[in-house]
Amino acid sequence: MPINRAATASMAPVDVPRGLAGVVVTDTEVGDVRGLEGFYHYRQYSAVELAQNRGFEDVWHLLVHGELPDAAQRAAFTARTAELRGLPREVRAALPAIAAATGLSGPLAGLRTALSLLGASLGFRPVYDIDADRRRADTLAASAAVPTLLTALYRLGQGLEPVEPRDDLAYAANYAYMLTGSEPDAARARAVEQYLISTIDHGFNASTFTARVITSTGADVAACLVGAVGALSGPLHGGAPSRALDTLDAIGTPDRIDPWIRERVLAGDRIMGFGHPVYRTEDPRSRMLRGIAQQFGGPLVDFAVEVERRVEAILAELKPGRELHANVEFYAGVVMELCGLPREMFTPTFAAARVVGWSANILEQAEDPKIIRPVARYVGPGAPVAVPQVA
Amino acid sequence: MPINRAATASMAPVDVPRGLAGVVVTDTEVGDVRGLEGFYHYRQYSAVELAQNRGFEDVWHLLVHGELPDAAQRAAFTARTAELRGLPREVRAALPAIAAATGLSGPLAGLRTALSLLGASLGFRPVYDIDADRRRADTLAASAAVPTLLTALYRLGQGLEPVEPRDDLAYAANYAYMLTGSEPDAARARAVEQYLISTIDHGFNASTFTARVITSTGADVAACLVGAVGALSGPLHGGAPSRALDTLDAIGTPDRIDPWIRERVLAGDRIMGFGHPVYRTEDPRSRMLRGIAQQFGGPLVDFAVEVERRVEAILAELKPGRELHANVEFYAGVVMELCGLPREMFTPTFAAARVVGWSANILEQAEDPKIIRPVARYVGPGAPVAVPQVA
Repeated sequence: MPINRAATASMAPVDVPRGLAGVVVTDTEVGDVRGLEGFYHYRQYSAVELAQNRGFEDVWHLLVHGELPDAAQRAAFTARTAELRGLPREVRAALPAIAAATGLSGPLAGLRTALSLLGASLGFRPVYDIDADRRRADTLAASAAVPTLLTALYRLGQGLEPVEPRDDLAYAANYAYMLTGSEPDAARARAVEQYLISTIDHGFNASTFTARVITSTGADVAACLVGAVGALSGPLHGGAPSRALDTLDAIGTPDRIDPWIRERVLAGDRIMGFGHPVYRTEDPRSRMLRGIAQQFGGPLVDFAVEVERRVEAILAELKPGRELHANVEFYAGVVMELCGLPREMFTPTFAAARVVGWSANILEQAEDPKIIRPVARYVGPGAPVAVPQVA
Repeated sequence: MPINRAATASMAPVDVPRGLAGVVVTDTEVGDVRGLEGFYHYRQYSAVELAQNRGFEDVWHLLVHGELPDAAQRAAFTARTAELRGLPREVRAALPAIAAATGLSGPLAGLRTALSLLGASLGFRPVYDIDADRRRADTLAASAAVPTLLTALYRLGQGLEPVEPRDDLAYAANYAYMLTGSEPDAARARAVEQYLISTIDHGFNASTFTARVITSTGADVAACLVGAVGALSGPLHGGAPSRALDTLDAIGTPDRIDPWIRERVLAGDRIMGFGHPVYRTEDPRSRMLRGIAQQFGGPLVDFAVEVERRVEAILAELKPGRELHANVEFYAGVVMELCGLPREMFTPTFAAARVVGWSANILEQAEDPKIIRPVARYVGPGAPVAVPQVA
């Protein structure tokens, strides 16, 4: 057959809700969100239960291999991904220039650039030109290097030397180590790890969809991930835990909670850290992260819990019938602050987990080589109008 | 309102054709393809007529400002975009490392990286945080620099010094000049320009859709363009004119046309350069580019015309009822070869035009701040299954 693409010319246009809301693009076995139940899962397991009972590498293995590892698989996977943390010489050489150039646009623009370079440097090839093992290997190489890229760019931007990855530390502990320059204590390493696990995937968000659209063209894994990072950087995507912390800062003290919140709600403003497009119950990630925060305790945690309690009460009073609860951003910010991560790295830390979810989606999409190519409806002036003579 | 995103939790899933084929994602005034008529347009004008009667800058202005320029607007737009061809110092400094790292993955991976860096370096901000003028300015800065980035990376990869842009040359002539190091003659400059104009936009292809999905999150213009470059790099996207030229090389001589084509068609192989998912008639771009090629004449052009004639005849015989014609790739490759562009730069040259089409789509999408976020249907094992104890 000379052509292998669908004959779209003759299809009647299909009208759907705006923003493709509710439109089923694909089947998936990666996971799902059940918003009405306040539940989400990776494969067949509750994501929160995975975060409570497993390490990041186990869940990473689950996402990209489709099953939790046994002891031998865990050891092999952990060793393999730890080895992949180092950067090719030419990528390392370019990082100071990237850090210098991306100071204004922030760490996700730096990650977008560095990840693009890494994939090129590793010779990633179109996903349809390689087999599933090679595709998976490419996702592992990219994901394993994300913490190294992010932390090196952050430290270079601060005038500090990058910290080399340590292959004796787990993914999460090594991330915190490379970022701060010192090994986190066990409680903080585990808190970061649980946050990262809980953030790996969450239904079919816009960055995941972007990754799948690019995959569907057959582009290489880096092209797919770089597009996803770009989508994640959009303010409407969500995943900016620092905003919720900024809310706590803006309120300042417990006595100011009520007037501050009432003023915002009555003005119709959005309160960062509250509300979610899917959950109508408490966000299960929020509940888990609050528990982690409360294990640390202290004034920030007490204040956050009080703000959450008051916001929910005021919203219930002023907006009755709406179910608005703290979302993942609210306690994620608190937990990362408690773990000593710099605030500008909160969203990049989110990316360091989500890259694994994108990877699982890319691998699944690549099994179904069909381009995702919708249509637009032309609503401009009727064509053709004769092109006027040059003025 | 504490949240401003649509309540998707309660919506019934909407089933649509695979790959979103025929699904209307948005209204547009950018342009359209009327496949059954063999016609496509930018705004209200035939794209082919624009290519025949206007310069690249005029059509670029049409796409991003919504109308063709008058004389004063043309002068101002041409001067402004010519000024934007230069690169920030830190981007220029990073290009040798990018060229070295992307040797394996090719020029689109280099462009992806360099454009990401450029946007960061220029401090691009989320599209929803800036006004329409600033968004347009960002697209102009990115588009104007694409030829500079592409040609510098190509030349560095060849061990040559990059050629500085000249602001006394039009976009197309300057592109050919920076690529080859010598100013093209008027016929070749115009042929490149007409090819570029004809390639600016073409309906709602996968890279355009990618750009719009990323825009819909509110990400910056560079994030949107980088995602689009990634999608363009996928083999299923189309836009690889070198493949059609490879077909001519593989056939070799006129006497081998018939057996070569028959063998491929009978084996069910795709013949690169023929067939299109939308056009059921001759591709209007193909017709225009054939005309340009025939103005140059010579053995390559004669051979291409003969191959086209024979392929269509054999396809009509062996696959009766299918309308399979030469697509844009076929004569685009011939024209670029005649203009002295290196074959590995054919697809990047396509990108140097399409960046303007992506820009128009990004600007339009940014006027409608609604995230594009479809859903997936979970079809894996029922969840939750209890997480097993660590092995």
